[in-house]
Amino acid sequence: MIRVTVWNENKHEQEIEEVKKIYPEGIHGCMKEFLSKEPDLDVRTATFYDAEHGLTEEVLSSTDVLVYWSHALQDEFSGEVAERIQRHVLSGMGLVALHSSHYSKILRLLMGTTMTLKWKHDESERLWCTSPLHPIAKGIPEVIDIPMEEMYGEPFDIPRPDDVVFTGWFSNGYVFRSGCTFTRGMGKIFYFQPGHEMNPTYHIPEIQKIIVNAVRYCSPDCIQRTLPQNVRIED
Amino acid sequence: MIRVTVWNENKHEQEIEEVKKIYPEGIHGCMKEFLSKEPDLDVRTATFYDAEHGLTEEVLSSTDVLVYWSHALQDEFSGEVAERIQRHVLSGMGLVALHSSHYSKILRLLMGTTMTLKWKHDESERLWCTSPLHPIAKGIPEVIDIPMEEMYGEPFDIPRPDDVVFTGWFSNGYVFRSGCTFTRGMGKIFYFQPGHEMNPTYHIPEIQKIIVNAVRYCSPDCIQRTLPQNVRIED
Amino acid sequence: MIRVTVWNENKHEQEIEEVKKIYPEGIHGCMKEFLSKEPDLDVRTATFYDAEHGLTEEVLSSTDVLVYWSHALQDEFSGEVAERIQRHVLSGMGLVALHSSHYSKILRLLMGTTMTLKWKHDESERLWCTSPLHPIAKGIPEVIDIPMEEMYGEPFDIPRPDDVVFTGWFSNGYVFRSGCTFTRGMGKIFYFQPGHEMNPTYHIPEIQKIIVNAVRYCSPDCIQRTLPQNVRIED
Amino acid sequence: MIRVTVWNENKHEQEIEEVKKIYPEGIHGCMKEFLSKEPDLDVRTATFYDAEHGLTEEVLSSTDVLVYWSHALQDEFSGEVAERIQRHVLSGMGLVALHSSHYSKILRLLMGTTMTLKWKHDESERLWCTSPLHPIAKGIPEVIDIPMEEMYGEPFDIPRPDDVVFTGWFSNGYVFRSGCTFTRGMGKIFYFQPGHEMNPTYHIPEIQKIIVNAVRYCSPDCIQRTLPQNVRIED
Repeated sequence: MIRVTVWNENKHEQEIEEVKKIYPEGIHGCMKEFLSKEPDLDVRTATFYDAEHGLTEEVLSSTDVLVYWSHALQDEFSGEVAERIQRHVLSGMGLVALHSSHYSKILRLLMGTTMTLKWKHDESERLWCTSPLHPIAKGIPEVIDIPMEEMYGEPFDIPRPDDVVFTGWFSNGYVFRSGCTFTRGMGKIFYFQPGHEMNPTYHIPEIQKIIVNAVRYCSPDCIQRTLPQNVRIED
Repeated sequence: MIRVTVWNENKHEQEIEEVKKIYPEGIHGCMKEFLSKEPDLDVRTATFYDAEHGLTEEVLSSTDVLVYWSHALQDEFSGEVAERIQRHVLSGMGLVALHSSHYSKILRLLMGTTMTLKWKHDESERLWCTSPLHPIAKGIPEVIDIPMEEMYGEPFDIPRPDDVVFTGWFSNGYVFRSGCTFTRGMGKIFYFQPGHEMNPTYHIPEIQKIIVNAVRYCSPDCIQRTLPQNVRIED
Repeated sequence: MIRVTVWNENKHEQEIEEVKKIYPEGIHGCMKEFLSKEPDLDVRTATFYDAEHGLTEEVLSSTDVLVYWSHALQDEFSGEVAERIQRHVLSGMGLVALHSSHYSKILRLLMGTTMTLKWKHDESERLWCTSPLHPIAKGIPEVIDIPMEEMYGEPFDIPRPDDVVFTGWFSNGYVFRSGCTFTRGMGKIFYFQPGHEMNPTYHIPEIQKIIVNAVRYCSPDCIQRTLPQNVRIED
Repeated sequence: MIRVTVWNENKHEQEIEEVKKIYPEGIHGCMKEFLSKEPDLDVRTATFYDAEHGLTEEVLSSTDVLVYWSHALQDEFSGEVAERIQRHVLSGMGLVALHSSHYSKILRLLMGTTMTLKWKHDESERLWCTSPLHPIAKGIPEVIDIPMEEMYGEPFDIPRPDDVVFTGWFSNGYVFRSGCTFTRGMGKIFYFQPGHEMNPTYHIPEIQKIIVNAVRYCSPDCIQRTLPQNVRIED
C-alpha cells in the first residue's frame, strides 16, 4: 500500500461560494475520494488549520507521497514545517505539488529558484502530453481539453526538469511546462499546473488519472528512509 | 570587462603551515594572480573576515561572476549574506563554486538538496573531460592528472546538472561528477571539485584555464540585472 | 571568419509564383543576404541542382556551418551525400536545419528516429523563448509573433534535445519544440521550425537574428576536424 | 508476460576454448537461464547463424524486448535486418544492448553517432550506480566489483543519454558511462558496458539483476505497436 497524505490549504473553500460549490468537501476531499478508489492507495488528509498544519514528524514519517495544494496562505505557512517536508522529500518521500503551490515555501526550498511565472484567470487550456513513454503518461490521451483554467505562462523560473511530461497551450497565446518531474535527494517530485480553485479541473477523469499515476511514480521503493549524508572513507 | 570577485574563507592559510606554504597569498591571492593575467577580467577579492564577509549589496551589485571557496566556517557564514548571494545569482550573477563549497549555505540554498558526498584525503585524481564541446572545456586536454587531491565520491546528492563537463577518477576506486553546470533563475553556476587546501591544485595551469573558462561561461550577457517576478497578464 | 554554406532545395522558388515573390533570389539568396551583413561570417550557397547537390567533399571540408532547407526533393536527395554530411557533422561541422528539413535524410541519419510530427498550413504562431540564457537566445525577445506559418505539432519524434530554446504556440491549439539543440560527435546541431516557403518568415528581423546566433553557436572551435575513432589503449 | 528474445552472435563460443568454458551454452544460453527464472519473462534465443539472423519480421513482431550481444561479425550483419530492428524499436520494442554491441549497425542507426570509445582488455572495474532512483537500479548495490573486464573509456561518442544509471571506474585510470538509457520513437533502450566474452561477467548475480531490471524497464506498455507517422491536421 502507498500511504498518501493529501494536504490542502482549505481557505478558499470556506470563504468563496463558487469554490464551495465546486469542491463541497474541499479540494482535499475531492482528491481523497478519487484516490481512495485505487486499491493500492491508503489516503488521509490534512489542512492548513490543523496543528503544525497536520504535517507533524509522525505524519510525514508514515507518508509515502504527499499531495500538496496551497495558495493564499503561503506566507503564513510555517517555515519550520516547510523545512521538515524538505527533509522528508530528500529522504525519499514523494511530492506531488499542484497548481499555485509552485510558489509555496516547500517548492522554493527544494528548487532554489524564484518559481515565478506569468498568470491570468479564465482561459481555456489544451494539455499536451510531451513525454508519452513516461509512467505518469500511462493511459493518458495525447491532449486533454480543459474548458477553463488559470493560464500560467513561460518563462517559468524552475531548474531544468528531469522530464516535461505535459506542455500547456492556452487560448490567449501562452505556453507552459505544465507537468514536470524532478529528483531531489532520494525523493521524486511532480509539479502539475492545472487546478485553479474556481474551475472544476480536479473533477476531470483524465486529470484524476494523471494525479493517480503521479502518486505511484513518486512513491519510494523502500520503506526505510534516510537523509543522504557526507561519508568519510577510511584507508 | 568581466568584473570578478574572488571570495575565500582564508582560515586555513592563517592557521596551517603547509597551506601557508602552498598559498602564501591565500587561495584568493593565487586566483587573483592568474585571473588578472586575462585582459577581459577585472578581479578583486574578499574573505570571511571582512565586514559582511566582504559581500555587501554594493559589492555583489558590481560583480559579474563570484568565485567562491569555503570550508571550515560554513556554519558560521551569515545566513543573510547567503540569501543575498542567492538573490544575485537568480538575478544573473555567475557563480563558480569550488571544492568544499559544495556544502556551503549558498550552494545548498541554490540546489535544494543535501549536497553530500563521500570523501577521503590523499588520493591521486585523473580528471576526464566528458563534454568536450562545452565552452568550459575549450583548450582543455582530454585528461588532467592531479598527483594528490581530496577524493570526492558518488553518490553526490545534487540535482541533475545541465552538463557534466568533467568526471573525476580517483586512485582508491571512486568516481565523481567533478565539473557540473547548473542554471538557476538568470544565473549560471559551475561547481568544480578539485582544490583541497593541502594540495597545490590551483597552481596547475590546466586547472587555472578551466577556472578562467568557467568565469567567462558564467558571466551574464547583460549588465542590468533583475530578479524574475510573477507577472499578471491583463486581458 | 566562420565559413557558412547555405543550402537550399530551390525547387518551390522555380515553380510556385507566390514563393518566387516572397524569395525572388530563393530562400538561399535571402539567407545569404542577411548572413553576409555579419562581419564574422563568410557565406556561399549551393542548391539541389548543383553537381553532387553542391555538397562535395571539398565544399564540406571548407564549411564551418551548413544551413540547410529542404522539402519536396528529400526522397531524391543522394544517400551518399547525406552520409557525407553526417560524417562532417560528426567531425565537427555545425548544422542549422530549417523547417521541413526535419524529414531530410541527413536529419534522420543523425537523429535515428522517424522525425515525424503533425502539420497544417496557415496558422499564426507565437514563438516563445524557453531557454533565455542560451547563446542562440541572445538579444531575442521573450516572444515573437509570426502572423502566418505552417503549424508543426507534438508529438515530434526526436531524441531528447540538449536544450529546447524555443517553443511554438499555434492558433489552432498545438504546441511544438520549435528550436532544439543537439550534439552529435564533435558537431553542434540546431533545428528550427519556422520557415514555410509560402510565408515570408525569413524576412522577419528577429528570425534572422536567431539564425545568425545559431550559426555562431554551431561553429566549431577548431579548424582541424576529425571523426571520433575507437582507440586501443596499450599497457 | 514480457516476451524476451535474447540475440547473441555466438561466434566466439564456437571458436575460443576459454569462452566455451565460461559460456558452455553460449552467452545467449546463460542469459536465457537466468532470465527464465523470472516468472514474468518468456524467453527465447536467436543467433547470427539463424536464417535472417533469427530476427524475422515475425520474431520481432512478437518480441517485447530484444537483448542483444554482438562483436566480431558486426560488419557481416545484414543491413536490412538492422533497419528492421530499428523500425521495431521506434515502434515500441525495447532494446537492451550489451558490451561490444555499442558498435553494431543497429546501435549506430539508432544513435546517429560513431559510437566509438577507448578500450583495453584485462582491467578490474568498479561499477558505480549514479542514478539510484532509476528503475534499473532497484535492489542494486551502490558499487559492484568486477574482478576482470574489458576497459571502455571516455570519450564515448553517444548522444546525451536520458540517464546515466551506472558509471564505470577502471583500474588503469579510465571512466565510462557504463549504463545509459535512451528513448527513440516509442522504444526504450538501455546500453550496458560489462560483458567481455573472455570474462565471466554474466555469471555475477548483481549483473544479472541489472539485466532483468533493464528488460522490465524497456518493455513497452502496450501490445499494439505503431511507427510514429507524419499526421496532417484538417481545418
